[in-house]
Amino acid sequence: MRASQLLIPTLRETPAEAEVISHKLLLRAGYIRRSAAGVYTYLPLAQRVLSKIKRIVREEMDRQGGQEILMPIMQPAELWQESGRWDVYGPELFRLKDRHGRDFALGPTHEEIITALVKSELSSYKQLPLLLYQIQNKYRDERRPRFGLLRGREFIMKDLYSFDADEAGLDITYRKMYDAYVRIFQRCGLRFRPVEADSGAIGGSDTHEFMVLAESGEALVVFCQNENCSYAANVEKAQSSELPKPVAELLPLEEAHTPGQKTIAQISKYLGLPESGLIKTLFYETESEVVAALVRGDHDVNEIKLQRVIDCARLELASEAIVTKLTGAPLGFAGPIGLKNVLVIADYEVSVMVNAVTGANKADYHYKNVCPGRDFKAGKIADIRFVKAGEPCPVCGGVLAEAKGIEVGQVFKLGDKYSKSLEATFQDENGKTRHYVMGCYGIGVSRTMAAAIEQHNDLNGITWPAAIAPFHLVIVPVNVKDQALMDISEVLYRSFLESGVEVVLDDRPERPGVKFKDADLVGYPLRLTVGKKFLEEGLLELRERRSGKTHFLKEEEILSFIKDFIKSGMAL
Amino acid sequence: MRASQLLIPTLRETPAEAEVISHKLLLRAGYIRRSAAGVYTYLPLAQRVLSKIKRIVREEMDRQGGQEILMPIMQPAELWQESGRWDVYGPELFRLKDRHGRDFALGPTHEEIITALVKSELSSYKQLPLLLYQIQNKYRDERRPRFGLLRGREFIMKDLYSFDADEAGLDITYRKMYDAYVRIFQRCGLRFRPVEADSGAIGGSDTHEFMVLAESGEALVVFCQNENCSYAANVEKAQSSELPKPVAELLPLEEAHTPGQKTIAQISKYLGLPESGLIKTLFYETESEVVAALVRGDHDVNEIKLQRVIDCARLELASEAIVTKLTGAPLGFAGPIGLKNVLVIADYEVSVMVNAVTGANKADYHYKNVCPGRDFKAGKIADIRFVKAGEPCPVCGGVLAEAKGIEVGQVFKLGDKYSKSLEATFQDENGKTRHYVMGCYGIGVSRTMAAAIEQHNDLNGITWPAAIAPFHLVIVPVNVKDQALMDISEVLYRSFLESGVEVVLDDRPERPGVKFKDADLVGYPLRLTVGKKFLEEGLLELRERRSGKTHFLKEEEILSFIKDFIKSGMAL
Repeated sequence: MRASQLLIPTLRETPAEAEVISHKLLLRAGYIRRSAAGVYTYLPLAQRVLSKIKRIVREEMDRQGGQEILMPIMQPAELWQESGRWDVYGPELFRLKDRHGRDFALGPTHEEIITALVKSELSSYKQLPLLLYQIQNKYRDERRPRFGLLRGREFIMKDLYSFDADEAGLDITYRKMYDAYVRIFQRCGLRFRPVEADSGAIGGSDTHEFMVLAESGEALVVFCQNENCSYAANVEKAQSSELPKPVAELLPLEEAHTPGQKTIAQISKYLGLPESGLIKTLFYETESEVVAALVRGDHDVNEIKLQRVIDCARLELASEAIVTKLTGAPLGFAGPIGLKNVLVIADYEVSVMVNAVTGANKADYHYKNVCPGRDFKAGKIADIRFVKAGEPCPVCGGVLAEAKGIEVGQVFKLGDKYSKSLEATFQDENGKTRHYVMGCYGIGVSRTMAAAIEQHNDLNGITWPAAIAPFHLVIVPVNVKDQALMDISEVLYRSFLESGVEVVLDDRPERPGVKFKDADLVGYPLRLTVGKKFLEEGLLELRERRSGKTHFLKEEEILSFIKDFIKSGMAL
Repeated sequence: MRASQLLIPTLRETPAEAEVISHKLLLRAGYIRRSAAGVYTYLPLAQRVLSKIKRIVREEMDRQGGQEILMPIMQPAELWQESGRWDVYGPELFRLKDRHGRDFALGPTHEEIITALVKSELSSYKQLPLLLYQIQNKYRDERRPRFGLLRGREFIMKDLYSFDADEAGLDITYRKMYDAYVRIFQRCGLRFRPVEADSGAIGGSDTHEFMVLAESGEALVVFCQNENCSYAANVEKAQSSELPKPVAELLPLEEAHTPGQKTIAQISKYLGLPESGLIKTLFYETESEVVAALVRGDHDVNEIKLQRVIDCARLELASEAIVTKLTGAPLGFAGPIGLKNVLVIADYEVSVMVNAVTGANKADYHYKNVCPGRDFKAGKIADIRFVKAGEPCPVCGGVLAEAKGIEVGQVFKLGDKYSKSLEATFQDENGKTRHYVMGCYGIGVSRTMAAAIEQHNDLNGITWPAAIAPFHLVIVPVNVKDQALMDISEVLYRSFLESGVEVVLDDRPERPGVKFKDADLVGYPLRLTVGKKFLEEGLLELRERRSGKTHFLKEEEILSFIKDFIKSGMAL
């Protein structure tokens, strides 16, 4: 394509609306434009990147036996009512009525449609496993759409649904998809980690999230630094391991006057003890009770783990009024000793503490030398805290590290949740009627594009991995009025096109500086400058966008260099 | 792919819901399933056909300089309010509100979005012409969705929008798109005609519809049989030519008693005159008046032409009460003579009649020897009738023929309708601010699939053009338990796959009859039967689906035969 004809509306200023780097660069480099909050138009460059990501996704889905289909975006409410999700999905589900007043949803996901389809079209174990996928728009009415393509309301997803005869079959399919995802993100040229995740409210059992590692990521993951260990988990899911047990003589319980000392930091300082010597007491309300959660002073309560331990639907911090009523003391002086009518849940690490400090349930007083077991009894002892970098790996005992990531994919064992609610069954080899065992596997296609930018950018713009860059190369003649430069540029342009190189000829009557800036901003992996050096010495300057490496090459050397470069960028 | 793993749920019975052949076959052959009225899931075979049509469309759009983008399906109401279409679009526009109560439409078309985009991103004539297109779902809440994919509520379209500096530029772009459409439907292997059409209420000037010819088509087109003339038009648009003028002595007006003779056929018979000797008088109501339309007894009023002549927004046949009141006679005896307070519009052919018959505006009486001009004066004389097969071509005078068609594409000169309402302007070479001159160009992608089936089917199923068939070939081993047959089938299957042939191996443990029936129904262009003849004589049976031609070939001859067959099917 010729730049003069391509719609690449680059901007000199960063639009005020953009908070994260991918959003800023997608706007500035002319990839997307906003139509409404969380709703975007993908301009030609973005469309090219998306089509490359889609192609990689399709190839890897097909390789694993996936069959591509296309399901409706407009889904009849009846199916959602049958699965029970119409009422529970809440305001994130876009709903509309047709001219006859019938209710529809704009699909945020397609479990209902696909389960109903397979229910009516399949009947025998012989047709299993069945893997069906699609790539298309999804809808989610986010309360606060933001970060550009990272949290939109209309976005592009690949979703595959698997149907197996039993759990063993699902295990195999799940592994296939896991492997396909690894290949996909590798082929896209991204640094990523598959991490164990919590299956949350959707039900189901195993699930992994695929995280593109980037400092700007909203998600925190921990992973084992041991090269031979593959343990990695979403921090919400990451299991804690036993820490070294404190060994000390049990001292007698003692009341300490701590006037105005309410926070862990204050008390630690005031009593001259490390924060790890304190016990934090937090009260939570569920739909049916109030509980007290105890973690070490230097640890944080992981509410997802706590919710699983309690097995409740709702969990939130109790109000000050409730805490005061239960403890008889102002906030900051609560502790487990003497608490009544409250289930006390202690983290494992709390249960092995000796001579700890807790609130005394009395204004301006704490207890010292608290020994769990001796001075109070927890109703439950469980893993209810966040794991932190530096702790031991729960698998190999190595040292855990932390990283920030952007979730771009998730694989999920659904089990029989939907096949049961929608009564989708088949006959097994013994003629017995059974429910399908399902899995679902999503990739955020538009989000992957944004995540790639979060990971690959510098001060001047985007530094695309070659495999998903919109073009491979831009040719920049430094002066479009110089016929000799334009002639050789045209010759090169045509020969590259014929060789399958995706090339842009920047034929705009702009100064070289403007063109170089745009080339860096857009992120062409290679830039070929056609200038004086060619006229004088017959050399062309080929610059690698990401490394900044510059090569001076003769005309006849260029094509093979470019091809090698592209090939190495496409390598799995 | 192996048939045992492919989701091709063929049906023995035709579902009762299907009225037209493409709908029946798409359901029976396992291509689509209904989710709601006018809303379908495309199963793997349909997805493959669609992706082939999309690829052809993309290649031809790109060839003409089109740039692919992707606009939102969810469109903010503000833009539609600005263009004025929010209020006038009516119940066919799907509307919804987001969680904050803001209004959105599900795009039936994208003029507003694209015009707003170009308005904000472009400013100079230098960037023109600009051709932007997308392929994605469109939404239209049809009052009565039917005919499967031919009239759905969620369907796939390609829509391109062009922006030119002036009418001359638009003419060039329009011609490019016209040519691209010709190539697209040729490459799809369809018999079609581009026809002149009426631009209707959308405004704009020139427009052509691309009609796939099929007996089941809802649209009627006329075209010139002269091989050197390309005239063809939608029957609603087709211009009438002068017919031979009757030559006769003008006889004196005479009243005839015609008791109970009300219809053209009755009067013609009763008076012993041809229908072409009668004048039909029809009354129409518009938003502001009642008019009388006169056409020859053997002609029909073309309401679209009539509406243009009157220049009214609403046009419908007047009620019996109004006709009775205006004429003073019961229905069936109306005529133009003595009519008061009514604009009389006569078709050209009526204006040249002599000694004709009309109603006498009196029960049971007609006038004979009516001579327009002498006995009554029409307020307007114009072309207000439908043209019929056998009439002269308005361009070359040749003979017109009629055909039925399915509209699969339309090219349309929009002019400045949207650029004016949305104030989208650019600077021309003289620095003057001007409105873009726009065009829009649509192809119904899912509809093209259905239209291809309407044109290409027989009693046994679909007879796809090779270029858009879901696969090229099916291999049918007649007995999957015969290891020798399966071995050679596998060898062929793998060698075809490696050569890029899109092949299905029907490895299902079914009787050959079932497999043959399914192969015909699905419409694989070629079927390779691996049976006894191979074991005995080393010959394989290759059958062409459409022609039924059968070839007995040796193993080593097959691949080149298949490749030639595919190639000829792909030829433009």
